[in-house]
Amino acid sequence: MARLKCTMSYDGAHFSGYQIQFGKRTVQGEVEKALAQIHKGRPIQTAASGRTDKGVHAKSQVFHFDTSLEIPEPNWQKALNSLLPDDIYIKCVERVSDTFHARFDAFAKEYRYFIRQETEPDVFLRHYVYHFPYELDLEAIKTACRYLEGTHDFTTFSSAKASVKGSRVRTLYQARCEQTSDGLAFIFCGDGFLYHMVRILVGHLLDIGRGEQIPSDIPELFAKKDRRLAGATVPPQGLYLWEVFYHE
Amino acid sequence: MARLKCTMSYDGAHFSGYQIQFGKRTVQGEVEKALAQIHKGRPIQTAASGRTDKGVHAKSQVFHFDTSLEIPEPNWQKALNSLLPDDIYIKCVERVSDTFHARFDAFAKEYRYFIRQETEPDVFLRHYVYHFPYELDLEAIKTACRYLEGTHDFTTFSSAKASVKGSRVRTLYQARCEQTSDGLAFIFCGDGFLYHMVRILVGHLLDIGRGEQIPSDIPELFAKKDRRLAGATVPPQGLYLWEVFYHE
Repeated sequence: MARLKCTMSYDGAHFSGYQIQFGKRTVQGEVEKALAQIHKGRPIQTAASGRTDKGVHAKSQVFHFDTSLEIPEPNWQKALNSLLPDDIYIKCVERVSDTFHARFDAFAKEYRYFIRQETEPDVFLRHYVYHFPYELDLEAIKTACRYLEGTHDFTTFSSAKASVKGSRVRTLYQARCEQTSDGLAFIFCGDGFLYHMVRILVGHLLDIGRGEQIPSDIPELFAKKDRRLAGATVPPQGLYLWEVFYHE
Repeated sequence: MARLKCTMSYDGAHFSGYQIQFGKRTVQGEVEKALAQIHKGRPIQTAASGRTDKGVHAKSQVFHFDTSLEIPEPNWQKALNSLLPDDIYIKCVERVSDTFHARFDAFAKEYRYFIRQETEPDVFLRHYVYHFPYELDLEAIKTACRYLEGTHDFTTFSSAKASVKGSRVRTLYQARCEQTSDGLAFIFCGDGFLYHMVRILVGHLLDIGRGEQIPSDIPELFAKKDRRLAGATVPPQGLYLWEVFYHE
């Protein structure tokens, strides 16, 4: 028995999210279908670093599974890619120790969110960036990012619908905003993310960029633990799970 | 009665081509459906600068139609975009003279074809660029482009399946190849293009770039008028109708 760690990218546009759901086209569903084919019909379970929502993309998602098949690692990559649909691509397959876990061993994750500020929509980018054709105060956004970094209770900046189990304290190692050729990139690296957290943080930063909220209110917003005080949840198409970090 | 000229972009990935076909999702079909809605169910015919194949994109396609409705031009754009699916976008609506014709008055068209040479496929670009991860001799391709420019019989470089009516002589005002961040862009500007002509020209230029054909054979290939002597037809996803040119 060998445990394999797979790194993949996927275009989330035509999936009902990552997690397997009966009767829906999901990333996990497609991956497990391909794995079952390779294992002559035997079901193979996978565990990913986490889920992504409908319409959210992954530049690098990680999952693991166990197999009794003796296949060299580069052949695993080829076999999977030949069976998977063309909106999923396996970038790398590596043998790992039997105790490795794609979710529990991830010590950090990076998400990126892209907005496009050009006046006219671009049909070729409609699934890949959020069209937000408004002027923004980048300096205010950068100031707000510094308030977000660090260890906080992110209840205000996560979906009120999420079932609460355990702490909502998370550490953002990095919150940044950078200019791109046609808009802005928001970059978040942290030890864990709550449901809708990145999309609500971006929504709030856009409000700050438009002058509807101010950066220095963020500590008070953290303290109040009230989702209604933060900005709207921005749509999924601008969001990418960018990288998952493991030790060694 | 007013004649309106519309400029639009579309993502060809999920269309069975431009031209209306019963039971298929086409660009013309969607546009004429939206126009019929605006005209309370009355069918409105459109005439475009030309067709594009399944999977081929348009950065700028032009069509015209006649209407008896009195609607200001900017409102036409809004009305159409609100009814059209999100893979078609009307960029501009202008009133033109009653004798304007989107096809017959176009004096030149520009097509661009993009290839990506990175080793690994990119799921986000699979519909928008042709993945061709091979080294190419750019200087040989540029030399070949100079042989292609000018007025020639392009029978060798067009689909043998196309029904021949009239001349296959066309003028390429410009044939260029430029490096992009991840591959090459092929740019063709001419007075008219035969069926599959751009995709066969690119296929042949890729053969030249790989050393399988030589630039100085092109005059002889023109003379032989034999499709079998040219390179393969490259796939549609790298091709864009880039601009249609009209006088004034």
